[in-house]
Amino acid sequence: MTQTPLLDRIASPKDMNGLSDIELGLLCQELRSEVISAVSETGGHLGSSLGVIELTVAIHAIFNTPFDKLIWDVSHQCYPHKVLTGRRDRIRTLRQEGGLSGFTKRSESEYDPFGAAHSSTSISAALGFAVGRDMGQPTGDAIAVIGDGAISAGMAYEAMNNAGSDGRRLFVILNDNEMSIAPPVGAMSSYLSGLYANTPLGLFKEMTDGFEANLPGPIREGAKRARQLVTGIPGSGTLFEELGFSYIGPIDGHDLSQLLPTLRAARARSDGPVLIHCCTVKGKGYSPAETSSDKYHGVAKFDVASGAQKKSKPNAPSYTKVFGEALTEEAAHDDKIVAVTAAMPSGTGVNIMQDRFPNRVFDVGIAEQHAVTFAAGMAASGLKPFCAIYSTFLQRGFDQIVHDVALQKLPVRFAIDRAGLVGADGPTHAGAFDVAYLSNLPGFVVMAAADEAELKHMVATAVHHNDGPIAFRYPRGEGTGVKMPLHGKQLEIGKGRIIREGDDVALLSFGAHLAECLLAAEELEAQGISCTVADARFAKPLDRPLIHQLARHHKALVTVEQGAQGGFGAMVLHDLANQGAFDRGLSIRTMTLPDRFIDQASPAAMYEDASLTAVDIAATAMQASGAMKSIIKT
Amino acid sequence: MTQTPLLDRIASPKDMNGLSDIELGLLCQELRSEVISAVSETGGHLGSSLGVIELTVAIHAIFNTPFDKLIWDVSHQCYPHKVLTGRRDRIRTLRQEGGLSGFTKRSESEYDPFGAAHSSTSISAALGFAVGRDMGQPTGDAIAVIGDGAISAGMAYEAMNNAGSDGRRLFVILNDNEMSIAPPVGAMSSYLSGLYANTPLGLFKEMTDGFEANLPGPIREGAKRARQLVTGIPGSGTLFEELGFSYIGPIDGHDLSQLLPTLRAARARSDGPVLIHCCTVKGKGYSPAETSSDKYHGVAKFDVASGAQKKSKPNAPSYTKVFGEALTEEAAHDDKIVAVTAAMPSGTGVNIMQDRFPNRVFDVGIAEQHAVTFAAGMAASGLKPFCAIYSTFLQRGFDQIVHDVALQKLPVRFAIDRAGLVGADGPTHAGAFDVAYLSNLPGFVVMAAADEAELKHMVATAVHHNDGPIAFRYPRGEGTGVKMPLHGKQLEIGKGRIIREGDDVALLSFGAHLAECLLAAEELEAQGISCTVADARFAKPLDRPLIHQLARHHKALVTVEQGAQGGFGAMVLHDLANQGAFDRGLSIRTMTLPDRFIDQASPAAMYEDASLTAVDIAATAMQASGAMKSIIKT
Repeated sequence: MTQTPLLDRIASPKDMNGLSDIELGLLCQELRSEVISAVSETGGHLGSSLGVIELTVAIHAIFNTPFDKLIWDVSHQCYPHKVLTGRRDRIRTLRQEGGLSGFTKRSESEYDPFGAAHSSTSISAALGFAVGRDMGQPTGDAIAVIGDGAISAGMAYEAMNNAGSDGRRLFVILNDNEMSIAPPVGAMSSYLSGLYANTPLGLFKEMTDGFEANLPGPIREGAKRARQLVTGIPGSGTLFEELGFSYIGPIDGHDLSQLLPTLRAARARSDGPVLIHCCTVKGKGYSPAETSSDKYHGVAKFDVASGAQKKSKPNAPSYTKVFGEALTEEAAHDDKIVAVTAAMPSGTGVNIMQDRFPNRVFDVGIAEQHAVTFAAGMAASGLKPFCAIYSTFLQRGFDQIVHDVALQKLPVRFAIDRAGLVGADGPTHAGAFDVAYLSNLPGFVVMAAADEAELKHMVATAVHHNDGPIAFRYPRGEGTGVKMPLHGKQLEIGKGRIIREGDDVALLSFGAHLAECLLAAEELEAQGISCTVADARFAKPLDRPLIHQLARHHKALVTVEQGAQGGFGAMVLHDLANQGAFDRGLSIRTMTLPDRFIDQASPAAMYEDASLTAVDIAATAMQASGAMKSIIKT
Repeated sequence: MTQTPLLDRIASPKDMNGLSDIELGLLCQELRSEVISAVSETGGHLGSSLGVIELTVAIHAIFNTPFDKLIWDVSHQCYPHKVLTGRRDRIRTLRQEGGLSGFTKRSESEYDPFGAAHSSTSISAALGFAVGRDMGQPTGDAIAVIGDGAISAGMAYEAMNNAGSDGRRLFVILNDNEMSIAPPVGAMSSYLSGLYANTPLGLFKEMTDGFEANLPGPIREGAKRARQLVTGIPGSGTLFEELGFSYIGPIDGHDLSQLLPTLRAARARSDGPVLIHCCTVKGKGYSPAETSSDKYHGVAKFDVASGAQKKSKPNAPSYTKVFGEALTEEAAHDDKIVAVTAAMPSGTGVNIMQDRFPNRVFDVGIAEQHAVTFAAGMAASGLKPFCAIYSTFLQRGFDQIVHDVALQKLPVRFAIDRAGLVGADGPTHAGAFDVAYLSNLPGFVVMAAADEAELKHMVATAVHHNDGPIAFRYPRGEGTGVKMPLHGKQLEIGKGRIIREGDDVALLSFGAHLAECLLAAEELEAQGISCTVADARFAKPLDRPLIHQLARHHKALVTVEQGAQGGFGAMVLHDLANQGAFDRGLSIRTMTLPDRFIDQASPAAMYEDASLTAVDIAATAMQASGAMKSIIKT
């Protein structure tokens, strides 16, 4: 175990007050080894955390947190911040059930004034705090730390456009590591090379002049790109200055002798919005991470000495991979098929198609709004676009789904990965709302895959559905291990299927909780209750004959879905109610995610927390069928 | 009636082929007078349409529409386009029931390849068409025409970032009139003045050099600002060039001798993305519009000679005004209250507060994503932000509502204007989905105002609700004329009210359809059916005791709301189902907007189209209560 004498004295950032700059440097070393050691036990976002060790120490040393508000964008890089802010004793519970969140979280610490997980929100939030400060709220400076990928998103641009014209004192630290999960940031990478900006704070120009030439290779490359990112041709102001910010940098984000005086001077002298441009290296200081292609962006538990990750062997292919392969197979037979991803080619599996058909896969960067309407434009031209976006991130494109896709009945195919509860990433990444926000859109077809074979069929179904939008959702992680069909076959739109037949109660599953429903059915049979299980497949259009048949021929009907209220169950209720199906009595229950956010744990544990296990389903069915009258939900 | 000999010969843009440039100029004059004449009869977006007369003629003269795809951003400036593209015979039905849409619409004409109404979507869509062209679809060039307000939004930035790096042939025409509904475009207005860009197409530089000095006063101002908008300091590339676009301009968008050669050369010579910067004057060529402060952005019917608008006298204050005044009154007593608008200060009524407390109202521009998270940041600092955004535009901030507001339980107050059907603006502006997409978010309070007095109470309620997010919705237009309370009083959270009591059926209204419910009740009483009417006030939390009491003591319960399925009715159904309330029979119906988009008409006619009149409500209640068994909805 590495000794950490300095870090041991830091119960909160206040304890850094007496430390010299040299001691702060030593503290960085200890903090780095602590983070490596902790993440080796828990897994998590190691690379980005290692990239901000010095930045974290410098900010806490110079600014007065938590009175000053430090806001980490995305915040998967917050592990060293958590160690310094009183959470070291729990750092080895990161992303575990009952443990620390993998992101900043207001309820976890006063040092987390604004939580995050989705990208590009930090400048907006920081500006809000700055207004609060100026209006007399007990809060100090606001500091947003944002990566080069996140700052390229439309939302960050909106915030800078507003903050720059507003003119209020505000600190934005650009953590430029060329390595978001995103690709190089679109057109930004074509910026002309140029000289440093004439910043209003001449000090920094002097301080940073000649900086580039003295940098070691990788950083120098970073600095060069950084200049391209932010400068026009020689003599021009930077993009940030044009937006009203003072611009400082680029500086070496791993060199405290640059970071500390820069932050000190900026804090002392700035009276408006200032952007401090730091070049960092993802995975810095841990060679297995630095030399890995993904810089250990997200890792499993690993061996510190070798860097070898302890990944468990999967029992079945992941839904993501099944989707990517099915899409590629379809694309091989239909050259109108194209795919769009918002900075997640491998996360969504479209990298599989990209390898084979690079010109037909479009990675638009962190830009879900554009992604959806771009896909709509391609659909309007006659192409067959698949827009592959996680459920939680698709929320960013909701208006475009309504206004550009649904209203125009354009055949955009939405492949919605990470539907339902997602495990270690917790509530910010839960795919809870997609069924609800899609199923009431006129003309949409909304499907959910019960297993990976169904997913393959839904890809085929989407290919051939060309008269309006269609969406299919599927969960994170491994499939169920079913036998895979050789080819996907087209499903009949709006047609569910009965999986097993019984007499007493009917379980109507929408999506990947079918397996739980089948377990529940066994449980019920064991108790002498005969159980039908059906897979609805479609939340829209509903399979009305199936639903009405289930309702008529059973004592109770229970809908089950991995999503919030207002989704599949709500559509079934609306339909039955307005058909008069409740007039003479129908024991119906809708099992959805509960009306609260579910903290991270394994998906299974999260569904247990959500009261969506097979046992819960069986109990609900029994209660509804009158077999267990004593249980009344309140 | 002005003679229009040239225009009379234009049945479609093809008929412009033989016209000389001089004749095209004459055509502009005729087109302008035709548009003025038509809008004087219908009302509508006159100013923006007059600003693009020459642009419209020039684009159709040079490009090969509809094979080339012309996409108008927002598209309220499309009236001259509609006149030229075969819709002149119906131009006097603009925005009327059964008439032409006030926006572009795919189902209306092949010359409208991509409809719009919300801002900033055109570049994304155009890029989609450009990809389609390059992949062999039967489509030509793609041309997006976008205003200076719309291009400042995050979505447009995302699209330019992608299009610029993609490098594909694409035309973006920036229609810079300094007069979106938005304020000056944030930090853009602080750009340094500078020289023209060194465009790759030197021709245009020559053509436009010295252009500014020769312009008449107002245009010169525009050109100056235009340079500030797009140029850095002397010698630098423009923002657009940095994003990978060729930049041409600024040119005078009312001068065909500049427009025609510019477009011809750009079409002939461009092989990548190009931005053509045109300066125009909103309301151009109609002096009442040019001299009006709002440039006749949206007008009622008017007298062409005098410009006098024929506005009908309101019978009650508008909901918007009631909100603005109530908020201002509350703000006078609580200096923590602040307001945020996304480029709609007068549309949302926060201009009333702005007049009195200018430093406490924040207009962030067309930037709903930022608006929501900025408000969340202010809430986190201890302020009491009211985020005032139309229902349809709030869709743009949905992810921020989930991720930044709901997950963090931050007390942001959402004032949701234009809820329900909105009349002449049609389906793109309908506020149909807000109740559905808010009511399943944990911790949210969701209210709807039955009348303008209720709205005032809800403002007060929101002020005092400080432990989580709260939203209240209200419709477009005039209130019901109820007596207004002197002060708003705090409503008990989750508590509805009974308006009238009866025995047979219960109507449970959520929001402004209460008046229809009361009319329906009279209808029912006239038929001998005794009717209770309740105002739910809250979709979340539900007033369970009230709902269960209504369910228990009536033969039928009908929920009524001005919104889509998945909203209030769905929440009631979920609750009752899971309480077992349907087990022994409950005649319940949910009246919502139907599962289709409703075309423009008067709001009353749209609700009739939607089967949401008092007669529909009464009929549904009768059918549900068994009084009219013959009517079965299918």
